[in-house]
Amino acid sequence: MFRRFFAPTVDVSAHCDLPCGVYDPAQARIEAESIKAIDKKVADNNDPDFRVRAAIIKEQRSQLVKEHLWVLWTDYFKPPHFEKYPQLHTLVNEATKLAGASGTKGSFDESVADELLAKIAEIDKIFQETKQAS
Amino acid sequence: MFRRFFAPTVDVSAHCDLPCGVYDPAQARIEAESIKAIDKKVADNNDPDFRVRAAIIKEQRSQLVKEHLWVLWTDYFKPPHFEKYPQLHTLVNEATKLAGASGTKGSFDESVADELLAKIAEIDKIFQETKQAS
Amino acid sequence: MFRRFFAPTVDVSAHCDLPCGVYDPAQARIEAESIKAIDKKVADNNDPDFRVRAAIIKEQRSQLVKEHLWVLWTDYFKPPHFEKYPQLHTLVNEATKLAGASGTKGSFDESVADELLAKIAEIDKIFQETKQAS
Amino acid sequence: MFRRFFAPTVDVSAHCDLPCGVYDPAQARIEAESIKAIDKKVADNNDPDFRVRAAIIKEQRSQLVKEHLWVLWTDYFKPPHFEKYPQLHTLVNEATKLAGASGTKGSFDESVADELLAKIAEIDKIFQETKQAS
Amino acid sequence: MFRRFFAPTVDVSAHCDLPCGVYDPAQARIEAESIKAIDKKVADNNDPDFRVRAAIIKEQRSQLVKEHLWVLWTDYFKPPHFEKYPQLHTLVNEATKLAGASGTKGSFDESVADELLAKIAEIDKIFQETKQAS
Amino acid sequence: MFRRFFAPTVDVSAHCDLPCGVYDPAQARIEAESIKAIDKKVADNNDPDFRVRAAIIKEQRSQLVKEHLWVLWTDYFKPPHFEKYPQLHTLVNEATKLAGASGTKGSFDESVADELLAKIAEIDKIFQETKQAS
Ligand code: NI
Ligand code: NI
Ligand code: NI
Ligand code: NI
Ligand code: NI
Ligand code: NI
Repeated sequence: MFRRFFAPTVDVSAHCDLPCGVYDPAQARIEAESIKAIDKKVADNNDPDFRVRAAIIKEQRSQLVKEHLWVLWTDYFKPPHFEKYPQLHTLVNEATKLAGASGTKGSFDESVADELLAKIAEIDKIFQETKQAS
Repeated sequence: MFRRFFAPTVDVSAHCDLPCGVYDPAQARIEAESIKAIDKKVADNNDPDFRVRAAIIKEQRSQLVKEHLWVLWTDYFKPPHFEKYPQLHTLVNEATKLAGASGTKGSFDESVADELLAKIAEIDKIFQETKQAS
Repeated sequence: MFRRFFAPTVDVSAHCDLPCGVYDPAQARIEAESIKAIDKKVADNNDPDFRVRAAIIKEQRSQLVKEHLWVLWTDYFKPPHFEKYPQLHTLVNEATKLAGASGTKGSFDESVADELLAKIAEIDKIFQETKQAS
Repeated sequence: MFRRFFAPTVDVSAHCDLPCGVYDPAQARIEAESIKAIDKKVADNNDPDFRVRAAIIKEQRSQLVKEHLWVLWTDYFKPPHFEKYPQLHTLVNEATKLAGASGTKGSFDESVADELLAKIAEIDKIFQETKQAS
Repeated sequence: MFRRFFAPTVDVSAHCDLPCGVYDPAQARIEAESIKAIDKKVADNNDPDFRVRAAIIKEQRSQLVKEHLWVLWTDYFKPPHFEKYPQLHTLVNEATKLAGASGTKGSFDESVADELLAKIAEIDKIFQETKQAS
Repeated sequence: MFRRFFAPTVDVSAHCDLPCGVYDPAQARIEAESIKAIDKKVADNNDPDFRVRAAIIKEQRSQLVKEHLWVLWTDYFKPPHFEKYPQLHTLVNEATKLAGASGTKGSFDESVADELLAKIAEIDKIFQETKQAS
């Protein structure tokens, strides 16, 4: 009944390691969108204290992106997926690197957040294909 | 460009307290769906060790529901929202209670998870309306 | 026997979600007093590295205030309390907002910490009354 | 002004490592009181799922006791205190052991929680004396 | 001077994402050894409360193994390493799966902990080779 | 079999509070080496954002040093150890202070990290002796 409120996102998915079986790249994407929004706010704000707060929070949000992607890589994706998508290991590895020191943790540049979002979108595309195949 | 992969969920929203401005009840919902899936798995599994693991994880997931809803209540919703939706305080209060000891933390009953999901759906409905109004 | 050491605070109270039944607004207050002390120290110290450390720690302490107050709102207070104290929802909502970006997280101004402490004191007053009534 | 609400606990004290200078053994005591309350509840409840939840939460609360006491030992107490109270090292060491595997973590026996509370009270007595001396 | 105390482990290595440049598979190994020790203790102990505590702790230790290995995979290993060791992606993926639900989280069997330790040893071997090559 | 890969560190040791019986001062040392590496990197880098990231991470790593040492003090060391090594209490207390505000948390000076490492080395020396005696 209450399902209709969520109509556009019928496939509920995410994450713990019981496993509950619920996985969703949206978790990583939401954090990456947050990083992009943080970058924008910092670009429009000259208060040095605000920049420090942004750095603290961007560090946390980037770490969450890494953790959500690692969970997908280890807990959701199985050997047949890696066989069918030979680029998948490299893709997740690059995406997690992009959420680290050489990526969003180390930069306030919005374009870096965009690169991260693009990688997450690629992972999400594969994720959605594997969901439909199962 | 990569946005097309996410077509059905155009409004990206969630959570930190910079604030980045990104909020999304989907975060609470995903955790509640996880709880429901855990309840189902426990109903189909007689291994006592599995039940203990499920209890540990359900405790964590329920706590995450509470935290995601608290963030919406404090950080996203503003005085005009509470004025327009006089039931909002009670709704969020009941939803967070439903993710606690008297709700999903204290029960493996799938119907309790359904009650929690229904409350989150009600909150999400108000959330979506306030997003469109802004 | 050892109780006499604690004479002035006979009513021990706090917080987990078993629930153990122990609740105490002192937990939120202690963190808010810490924030006020941090603000004072920063006002007396020109070292930029110190200010960064203070920002990191103030962010954590403010978050703890929010969490302690959320626990009271969801886990301690019950429907009859909200009926008897119609201002209680708004009061806790405002207090948690005051521990966030628009409050102590976003400011090193001691008067903001004082406002937060005043709100916590109002919550504590209601808390003490409900304890005596039970 | 709002201070009068807190009349019996004038000395606000606790904990972070800026340091803010606020320290209070009440933090450890509140968690230990929680453990005692958990033990009582378990003694009155035969539900095995409840006992598991209690074990999870008692593990966390015991850990918090250890952490609060460690903070006092390292951050609050200074060489002159250890000189004046030669038993202080042993006292805190025993108290933290009592919150571990050989103490409240490893037992649902209320008397173990009482032993822990007694040790915390001894630490608090020294703490209060050192506060008055300063 | 004090280095001589650590003689056998001259290469100090580990982990954060500044990055500090310090990495060490010993961190994952220590947690896995802990899991093995937990399995042994549970095999020798019939107390059901002890088994619950062991489950709680084994869940945490297994999660730490996953996190330490993920950090190596994303932060330490670089494209040339993955080129030189084409099995490396699969190896880390299998190792992290072995620390999850289908591995040490889901089992009290000591042989599962041994399998995990063997995988970590394979990763460590590659790690040591890459350290010497640099 | 896989043990040969770890030949130089035969004595596996670390930490949880089951207790698993595995303890290792290497955990504290690795974090302290990380702090030293962070100090070096900051000395060579004028980017203020980098310094803020370093401060955030140094705060975390220093806290980990404290926690690892506290675990040794409370969980590993027993009354006979404190009797045989009367300086042990003071040694661990000083080491944990050196990882705090008056030590590595409050300073980017590499020599402070060296002092901390030296203290950890002293603790490790005693640790190794007690391991051999048991
Ligand atoms: Ni899950
Ligand atoms: Ni946000
Ligand atoms: Ni409680
Ligand atoms: Ni403090
Ligand atoms: Ni590092
Ligand atoms: Ni252990």
